[in-house]
Amino acid sequence: MIQSNLHEQCAVFGIYNHPNAAEITYLCLYALQHRGQESSGIAVSDTRAITMHKAMGLVSQVFSSGEVLAKLKGIHAVGHNRYSTTGSSTIVNAQPILINFKAGQIASAHNGNLTNALNLRRQMEKDGSIFMSTTDTEVIMHLLARSHRSTIEKMILDSLSQVQGAYSMLFLTPAALYGVRDPRGVRPLILGKLGDSWLLSSETCAFDLVGAQIVREIEPGEMIKIDEKGITSYTVPLFERIKNHAHCIFEYIYFSRPDSFVFGNNVDKIRRKFGRQLAVEHPCPGADAVIGIPDSATTAALGYAEESGVKFDIGLIRNHYVGRTFIHPVQSGRDLNVRIKFNPVKGVIKGKNIVLVDDSIVRGTTMKKLVNLMRTAEPASIHLRISSPPIICPCFYGIDMPTKEELIASVKSVEEIRKDFGVDSLGYLSIDTMLSVLKPEERGNFCTACFNGSYFAEPST
Amino acid sequence: MIQSNLHEQCAVFGIYNHPNAAEITYLCLYALQHRGQESSGIAVSDTRAITMHKAMGLVSQVFSSGEVLAKLKGIHAVGHNRYSTTGSSTIVNAQPILINFKAGQIASAHNGNLTNALNLRRQMEKDGSIFMSTTDTEVIMHLLARSHRSTIEKMILDSLSQVQGAYSMLFLTPAALYGVRDPRGVRPLILGKLGDSWLLSSETCAFDLVGAQIVREIEPGEMIKIDEKGITSYTVPLFERIKNHAHCIFEYIYFSRPDSFVFGNNVDKIRRKFGRQLAVEHPCPGADAVIGIPDSATTAALGYAEESGVKFDIGLIRNHYVGRTFIHPVQSGRDLNVRIKFNPVKGVIKGKNIVLVDDSIVRGTTMKKLVNLMRTAEPASIHLRISSPPIICPCFYGIDMPTKEELIASVKSVEEIRKDFGVDSLGYLSIDTMLSVLKPEERGNFCTACFNGSYFAEPST
Amino acid sequence: MIQSNLHEQCAVFGIYNHPNAAEITYLCLYALQHRGQESSGIAVSDTRAITMHKAMGLVSQVFSSGEVLAKLKGIHAVGHNRYSTTGSSTIVNAQPILINFKAGQIASAHNGNLTNALNLRRQMEKDGSIFMSTTDTEVIMHLLARSHRSTIEKMILDSLSQVQGAYSMLFLTPAALYGVRDPRGVRPLILGKLGDSWLLSSETCAFDLVGAQIVREIEPGEMIKIDEKGITSYTVPLFERIKNHAHCIFEYIYFSRPDSFVFGNNVDKIRRKFGRQLAVEHPCPGADAVIGIPDSATTAALGYAEESGVKFDIGLIRNHYVGRTFIHPVQSGRDLNVRIKFNPVKGVIKGKNIVLVDDSIVRGTTMKKLVNLMRTAEPASIHLRISSPPIICPCFYGIDMPTKEELIASVKSVEEIRKDFGVDSLGYLSIDTMLSVLKPEERGNFCTACFNGSYFAEPST
Amino acid sequence: MIQSNLHEQCAVFGIYNHPNAAEITYLCLYALQHRGQESSGIAVSDTRAITMHKAMGLVSQVFSSGEVLAKLKGIHAVGHNRYSTTGSSTIVNAQPILINFKAGQIASAHNGNLTNALNLRRQMEKDGSIFMSTTDTEVIMHLLARSHRSTIEKMILDSLSQVQGAYSMLFLTPAALYGVRDPRGVRPLILGKLGDSWLLSSETCAFDLVGAQIVREIEPGEMIKIDEKGITSYTVPLFERIKNHAHCIFEYIYFSRPDSFVFGNNVDKIRRKFGRQLAVEHPCPGADAVIGIPDSATTAALGYAEESGVKFDIGLIRNHYVGRTFIHPVQSGRDLNVRIKFNPVKGVIKGKNIVLVDDSIVRGTTMKKLVNLMRTAEPASIHLRISSPPIICPCFYGIDMPTKEELIASVKSVEEIRKDFGVDSLGYLSIDTMLSVLKPEERGNFCTACFNGSYFAEPST
Repeated sequence: MIQSNLHEQCAVFGIYNHPNAAEITYLCLYALQHRGQESSGIAVSDTRAITMHKAMGLVSQVFSSGEVLAKLKGIHAVGHNRYSTTGSSTIVNAQPILINFKAGQIASAHNGNLTNALNLRRQMEKDGSIFMSTTDTEVIMHLLARSHRSTIEKMILDSLSQVQGAYSMLFLTPAALYGVRDPRGVRPLILGKLGDSWLLSSETCAFDLVGAQIVREIEPGEMIKIDEKGITSYTVPLFERIKNHAHCIFEYIYFSRPDSFVFGNNVDKIRRKFGRQLAVEHPCPGADAVIGIPDSATTAALGYAEESGVKFDIGLIRNHYVGRTFIHPVQSGRDLNVRIKFNPVKGVIKGKNIVLVDDSIVRGTTMKKLVNLMRTAEPASIHLRISSPPIICPCFYGIDMPTKEELIASVKSVEEIRKDFGVDSLGYLSIDTMLSVLKPEERGNFCTACFNGSYFAEPST
Repeated sequence: MIQSNLHEQCAVFGIYNHPNAAEITYLCLYALQHRGQESSGIAVSDTRAITMHKAMGLVSQVFSSGEVLAKLKGIHAVGHNRYSTTGSSTIVNAQPILINFKAGQIASAHNGNLTNALNLRRQMEKDGSIFMSTTDTEVIMHLLARSHRSTIEKMILDSLSQVQGAYSMLFLTPAALYGVRDPRGVRPLILGKLGDSWLLSSETCAFDLVGAQIVREIEPGEMIKIDEKGITSYTVPLFERIKNHAHCIFEYIYFSRPDSFVFGNNVDKIRRKFGRQLAVEHPCPGADAVIGIPDSATTAALGYAEESGVKFDIGLIRNHYVGRTFIHPVQSGRDLNVRIKFNPVKGVIKGKNIVLVDDSIVRGTTMKKLVNLMRTAEPASIHLRISSPPIICPCFYGIDMPTKEELIASVKSVEEIRKDFGVDSLGYLSIDTMLSVLKPEERGNFCTACFNGSYFAEPST
Repeated sequence: MIQSNLHEQCAVFGIYNHPNAAEITYLCLYALQHRGQESSGIAVSDTRAITMHKAMGLVSQVFSSGEVLAKLKGIHAVGHNRYSTTGSSTIVNAQPILINFKAGQIASAHNGNLTNALNLRRQMEKDGSIFMSTTDTEVIMHLLARSHRSTIEKMILDSLSQVQGAYSMLFLTPAALYGVRDPRGVRPLILGKLGDSWLLSSETCAFDLVGAQIVREIEPGEMIKIDEKGITSYTVPLFERIKNHAHCIFEYIYFSRPDSFVFGNNVDKIRRKFGRQLAVEHPCPGADAVIGIPDSATTAALGYAEESGVKFDIGLIRNHYVGRTFIHPVQSGRDLNVRIKFNPVKGVIKGKNIVLVDDSIVRGTTMKKLVNLMRTAEPASIHLRISSPPIICPCFYGIDMPTKEELIASVKSVEEIRKDFGVDSLGYLSIDTMLSVLKPEERGNFCTACFNGSYFAEPST
Repeated sequence: MIQSNLHEQCAVFGIYNHPNAAEITYLCLYALQHRGQESSGIAVSDTRAITMHKAMGLVSQVFSSGEVLAKLKGIHAVGHNRYSTTGSSTIVNAQPILINFKAGQIASAHNGNLTNALNLRRQMEKDGSIFMSTTDTEVIMHLLARSHRSTIEKMILDSLSQVQGAYSMLFLTPAALYGVRDPRGVRPLILGKLGDSWLLSSETCAFDLVGAQIVREIEPGEMIKIDEKGITSYTVPLFERIKNHAHCIFEYIYFSRPDSFVFGNNVDKIRRKFGRQLAVEHPCPGADAVIGIPDSATTAALGYAEESGVKFDIGLIRNHYVGRTFIHPVQSGRDLNVRIKFNPVKGVIKGKNIVLVDDSIVRGTTMKKLVNLMRTAEPASIHLRISSPPIICPCFYGIDMPTKEELIASVKSVEEIRKDFGVDSLGYLSIDTMLSVLKPEERGNFCTACFNGSYFAEPST
């Protein structure tokens, strides 16, 4: 996926009992940068009080000076990277959120989206609550603070019993770190260990960076509390009856880093199998090379190449120096935003029959420009292959999702899309084929609503 | 006063109906910069929705690029400068505060301090509220949102009926601007007019900058609503029985800019009379020159000089390039922080009997260093005169106030202070003399609690 | 003077033998900030090699992080602040200038202007030299490097024997610090001592900040070398026959800080006498108050008040938070640039006959706006008094000087200027009266060319 | 190559006759960012005068605000990106260099290194020249300015007749753009066309970005002048007799972007053939996957995979968010600098026999850490293959080259290196095999001195 607001993703990271809690969190947020580039923040506890720093920007920008980290003294910490969309890009939405409430201080970092957040907000607003951000985290913080239960862990569980949707969340009190995952396990959350320290992370690539070991995934519907007594496990009360888990399959398709271990599998392995199956389902006889759109579709393209026997190649160079603020109007009519990110390698493409692999298509606007750009390298033909099914429904676990009308596969047939893009052939992975990659017992535990509209929980309106 | 955390001050500014609402607000915040250098922010309404930008730093830093202001499109606005103390210097305390609540969006900017804020917070926390900042503004926002009254104006009034203390506040909804002052009128708030626009400001010096006219002060206990129907006036319900107003006399002593018109008087005129009366009460026969500590004590020093006939002189040069972040450890033992701000003019001081005028003394630590610094210019004698009474009680309208024990005049006699500072004589203005400067009918309407402990409302604990 | 490009001024500072050479230089550049706000730089020697950091901005901005200073390790240093004009504001003109030449490394910092620089440049360009900046310092560096003398000190003297004009310069080699002043002594340069360290500074206010003692002025035409043998004094060979010194009288009128000791006098004392004599020469019977334009004309206004018996007052408040980048177009027609810097105190001005004192007038454009601004405070009358003579000729020691046509006093009579400004009366100090303030034996040693065209050296063309 | 100071590379770009010359240059410098990340700059001519902006940082940082570009008004421009090494990272070395000399203004941007620069500097220093930077460009500027020839083009040619080594240089006068390449053609320089504009660039990937067409390479020893008469070609006089060209083969191995066309070939095609030949020369029977170190060795790894039939795979994930300033001491003992850039994909590596391909090895320190890192993913074996010969001699076209002693292949045998790295086998491409990839007639025209010490010109000392 070149660029998309289909889902909002975030990274969460927490650590318990490390003399350099803030620095470890900083490094791990850095490894998780791909899950959010808009803002970053760390809250740290010295066991008595929590201090926090957060700001807009990349991890390396928010914590650019050693002084900022040096002020975050403590041994427990939570950190957060927020995704980047234009709409709500403001400091009030940056996380962690640190509040004072009847039981003292608590900080929270959240990955996921609630489907009944708006209803809950409206209800709480009616009851006199105020909201300073547009984050679901604030909604949960309100529920937590309104709980009449006797302990923090009960309060958290109480609040979560009222919400619907996706949440992999961390809570930090001065004395304890909590990690919790929604009963469907939509987003990942993993427990790790580094010496005497416990770690919680959205993805395992953060553990690798600091040399920590994977312990296990937090179970869907499980909350763990880490304090001086060690780890205690709790079960999140159900808001509604659930049959199955609903892991977001887009973590395999696009979100997670391929070197992470997510939902019980290496991301790389699954993503590659999507590519393999794509080659089976939509072969491309006579093709000379398989080219993936870097970097997100590279793994699927490798799979396509392996299965098809067509050689994998690097036909698009990505310029990694592109910053977020790059906007200059000259020549903007010439698809400069795509050109500046990608350059086709003429030596690879010219005169060749190219299988171009992408992981997914949302609106299709960027893909159209990219195909135009590839045409300048004069391929004999371009055969576009997508390693996921057509997206026909918005995801209700994302705030900034396009409407159904904006999803190109929702309003156009595959053939129409093919014509629109100007490619010689177009093939999407089918839902069944996609699921066939997973073990039979896993298949029912994944959410495929964006491909078929089978939402596990209807959104509130 | 060289530097003090005795009171926290802030600046508020609002404008209704101006095509360049954000830019006018920006200019006026700039004129009000002396009331707060920690953070600055502007919320602007285009009549349908409110957008906001706020950040840490001076007005010119927060709005350093034209792009930031350009994004704040709208015709009504509120702005805020926050004072600078070390304790709570964090983005979560920056104002305005913009919330969503049952009636939609509302932004608020506040100058003042509530004495029952902590009680209210605790009570609301018990009831399940969360607090993200340590500001009183957030407390009022909660009360407002909890009100069951039918209109915004009634909700505001309802919330204010529950608070005690000082508040000059602005509220901005998409369609209306509100200005309200506590029943004792502790802090100033003035209404102005610029063409077809209405303005509300902490001080009139902001009006001068943009060429606006003073209309009138908002009355103590008055709330005005400015909308398309014009101005409507309301009365704030009383939380408790009050006898008199309690204007903060420190606005005359130190806070306000001398070119402002506050509490019915030109600040310059009153401040100068304090200096005159100081000369009457503590004359200094044989003095050669009157030197005020720049810039805050200059006006009082002028008054002392006028009354005493001793010539006014500039004996201390202030370096205005001192930034907030200037800290380097070299030579720190040599009172560098004072030296870097002030340099004595040897040609004025050497061999002379100097009357050194300051407006007030809080802890006395900086004054001691300053006297040491002046001694390097070899005066024959230094006679310190303070244009306000000894501060013996903390102000309950300030969060970061020193305790009674930290107030030098609370723990030492005037003679002990004199010895401590190493000056040849020391005289404070007495409370009665200070009040004598005001018209007889005004005297009962000023708060002098920091000088005599006569609080109009005991602080909650 | 509110603002002027009449002369360019710079600050130079050097230190020999101090373990924190860069930090002391930083502090002293800070005290000398008034002599240049465009760029700042420090070159430091660890006795073997010289390293340098320089950038655009205020001292506190250029050295904003402790890391920058920490990298400047060494025991000898030279520093420089550059004045601010728009024309040549570019990093290539920032100083110090550090070169490699046949004798190794040498850094230089320069205050002053050469009158034959252009001729020398043209000659050297003809000989094959290249110039990367528009500074005179680079010209001298070229001359130095072309010298065939055997020692650095002889090379410096050789190069200076070829230049005409004003220079107070510092040179730093890895092992020695040199300070030199042109034979007419146009700009100041003072030697100081701090423990075992020697200091050289444009003004003594830098010494006061770090607690150093004044030793003596470098003599006009003297060069001193400071190395492990102590101080050695040399005489600069004459380029042309000179009769008298030509100290720039504008150092007394405007440039130097009043707390500095310059050309054998306290600046404050001389500046004040200008004000006194102005009162004698242009009294103002019936005046109610004397107001100086802050901060530069305050001292002269005090002198006027002392002599005339009319009371000194603060009738204009200056906003010290104005940064350099503040430009927003709204209301620009309303003289916003003056309004934003100054606010008249109505309580002081209204209905009064005001003597308004400024130190000098160059183009007159800002003064006209300021008078307009003061009129808004409704004085009965404004009597403008200037504590220097009419400027009728450009200064050839400044690059960015206005032409004769731009100098208002060159093209209009005093009466025409009065009408132009809209003041009730206008009086300039005459040249003779100005000089009468100095001791008789000093008078011939000051340059007054901008007032009468008597240049000591005609500019090259 | 993970990181190296073996050669210094820079990017040059020029444009003649485009209404948005500075913006086009900015975009193209952006496409050439891989050739230099330390500093960036643009000089632009409006046909009468040249203005310049340069600063430390990436292209997007140096030209972060539209205002900076907007000030660079003109229709001709040259731009430069400078490589990054620690030693000489200072603003005085940033390019372009803009000088004033006898013929007016000229700006220059240089890619390459002179071998007799030090001799020339010393000679010119003896003659009285000064040097403000450590760049060779400044040396050439001095030679140019000293030339007695009658036209700019003759002066340039005259100056180049005195230098030895590598230069692809651009010169900009107010009216003309010059591009010149040393007689051996060490570095590339290409002419392009965009509408009515002429472009000169280090690599063709810049042309692709703005939609320009390749016209031709500037010939080794050719200088072209572009002015209103069109293009005129000149021949650079020879400093010494040359037999062959000496294109730097490292442009194919590492420097150039694979999508560029350099020295008459697509970089991608040559680089890939290196990989193919590597597979022939050092096959790896039983290997499961070929992994290239991203991004520079990816193309060679693809070639290895194609030839060997072993599948290409992505086994190392590179974090592209790594900024230059990322340094925090925690855990630094754990090879954090390598870990933070790369993460091994366990799912690809575990239990597999891996062929790890890199393009070159200089000191070997980083490679050792990277092998350690890969071992954490538990491969069965690691077989390291290098797509270039052992580097045994420093390159005299680079300033910051390691000495012979620092080059691991110079002091250790291949078997010793293998043991040192802890890999199961190690194979380098031989020189002959490397050259066999090129057409027979091309082979004699490449420099291979770093592999065999056959320098075309001995360095001066």
